[in-house]
Amino acid sequence: MRVALDAMGGDHAPGPIVAGAIAAVQADANVRVVLVGDQAQIEPHLAAVDANARQRLDIFHCSQVVTMEDSPVMALRKKPDSSIVRSWQLLAEKKVEAIVSAGNTGAVVAGGMRLRRFLPHVDRPGIAAILPTLQGPCVMLDVGANVYPKPAHLFQYGVMGSTFAKHVFKKDNPRIGLMNIGSEEQKGHDLAKETHLLFNGSHLRDRFVGNVEGRDINRGAADVIVCDGFVGNVIIKVCEGVFEFMMKMVGQELGGTLKQEWPQAKQALGNIVDRYDYSSHGGAPLLGVDGICIICHGASGDVAIKNALLVAAKYASLQLNQLIVAELEADPILSVATSGV
Amino acid sequence: MRVALDAMGGDHAPGPIVAGAIAAVQADANVRVVLVGDQAQIEPHLAAVDANARQRLDIFHCSQVVTMEDSPVMALRKKPDSSIVRSWQLLAEKKVEAIVSAGNTGAVVAGGMRLRRFLPHVDRPGIAAILPTLQGPCVMLDVGANVYPKPAHLFQYGVMGSTFAKHVFKKDNPRIGLMNIGSEEQKGHDLAKETHLLFNGSHLRDRFVGNVEGRDINRGAADVIVCDGFVGNVIIKVCEGVFEFMMKMVGQELGGTLKQEWPQAKQALGNIVDRYDYSSHGGAPLLGVDGICIICHGASGDVAIKNALLVAAKYASLQLNQLIVAELEADPILSVATSGV
Repeated sequence: MRVALDAMGGDHAPGPIVAGAIAAVQADANVRVVLVGDQAQIEPHLAAVDANARQRLDIFHCSQVVTMEDSPVMALRKKPDSSIVRSWQLLAEKKVEAIVSAGNTGAVVAGGMRLRRFLPHVDRPGIAAILPTLQGPCVMLDVGANVYPKPAHLFQYGVMGSTFAKHVFKKDNPRIGLMNIGSEEQKGHDLAKETHLLFNGSHLRDRFVGNVEGRDINRGAADVIVCDGFVGNVIIKVCEGVFEFMMKMVGQELGGTLKQEWPQAKQALGNIVDRYDYSSHGGAPLLGVDGICIICHGASGDVAIKNALLVAAKYASLQLNQLIVAELEADPILSVATSGV
Repeated sequence: MRVALDAMGGDHAPGPIVAGAIAAVQADANVRVVLVGDQAQIEPHLAAVDANARQRLDIFHCSQVVTMEDSPVMALRKKPDSSIVRSWQLLAEKKVEAIVSAGNTGAVVAGGMRLRRFLPHVDRPGIAAILPTLQGPCVMLDVGANVYPKPAHLFQYGVMGSTFAKHVFKKDNPRIGLMNIGSEEQKGHDLAKETHLLFNGSHLRDRFVGNVEGRDINRGAADVIVCDGFVGNVIIKVCEGVFEFMMKMVGQELGGTLKQEWPQAKQALGNIVDRYDYSSHGGAPLLGVDGICIICHGASGDVAIKNALLVAAKYASLQLNQLIVAELEADPILSVATSGV
């Protein structure tokens, strides 16, 4: 399984990015990583690697870097030899099965859009975020790729998300929910109302649980949640912010209260952070493109990068995209939906 | 200070609603509450009240109730003698200075919209939610009244929110942020981009801190956050959901770890819930209407209702609306903004 890794993307690249690649090939003997970036900056971080790992680490040299501040579309045009552009090209040329980047999210998405190699029946790719709930993980999309989706796009997200939940979470009949501001069918804006109709008229009718609200996510009201990219992006960042705030407040309150058992409490809180910290997870797949693409948080450290690489290899070996295409093809509503609802 | 209280609104009305009214008049000798609702259902809950409190509790009998399931606009039309419609009428006739309801939020807002008694220079009222941050409270609006705002509406929310932050939070120069999905000016949808321009060209320029993201809210990046009602409503419910989830997870983890100090830890967690539980707060003001209107969570108990009544009285005595109008009038951009940007 070959994965291209944007070695220059991330707040502290390339150090922790390369370290994550080393950890990934050490953890899984089937994984090969192509480090895409400036050879001179990458090589020093490979100096101490054992020979077995080293032979599954390649470097694809390129001279440019898209920064976090770059405008995505401009960056792609002006930096054709950037690690993001080159990673997508390797995927398009089938030289790798997957790509992973912790760089400028907008540029990563724009790179995929520009190649236009989407899966059949997919009009727009969407970024899928995995969120913890009381009933196991749920997948929410889109969380930032598509700020102006049509109802048909949200419907396709529902199909892709439920295929994901079925094969990655192993949930046999994933429940699909529509993010909205009330439980009643007629609630929300036109996008929500029209998407509601689309699901209710589709073969996913039985799996569609209707509207879900913000407070229902963690309760586990649905296994798949669809929403526009603006709302989804706000949601994942609010989750991050409330989590961070609450852990700080709980830590302060307990630190000021407990005495002998404070060390144990601190350890317990550390476990919670390890388990739920939204920013340290392995990354979010961009579903709907032909190939696997995992987008990581800019602050990703070596562990997050390692996890993202292993997850990318796993999705590729699960043949997730083939399963998504099969599910989309089985849907009679799609010819209507994709004609521009 | 006279406040009309929708005695029939709320998941367990009228019991805890009336109890909240009793507690409010006992707590503040300047507060009179008009209980709007079915006299026969209200009176039993007043039986044990002391004479001093009782003389500041009136009943305004009406025969109909808008349920949580009712469609807001239909309900107002079909139920002219409902507690929500009657409460608004009391406000419009200046028989009360404020109204409080834990009933169907959509119907409460629609009731205010239908009366069309907005403050001068306000095109659309907005619901303001108060959120905790590391730098004191912040106010976010709109959180559910206006799903399709124009940039001028968000600008007006910024003015109203900053007046609120100045006089209620006592923050001298409140910082105004625009909810968006990135920090750069050109990020987000057209509404965000146009609102950005409007603030930067206004007299609030120096107080405008630009885009804030979901994770910045609790960090205290702004004292006032403006957004459309769909996004705002999702945000407050996500906050509620993540809070609930985290407290459950922290409780489980600590309960399984601590021994002798578990009772103290439990107490400490209880303090956190008391302080931050988003669902038990005193309610959210609907800013921009001529009069004070506080919208409470459907699950509000007596304490939340009491707090909402006291808060309503406080805003009325602060002359919050007069201050908002003065601030709006001082703005030269408004004549442009309200002409339909």
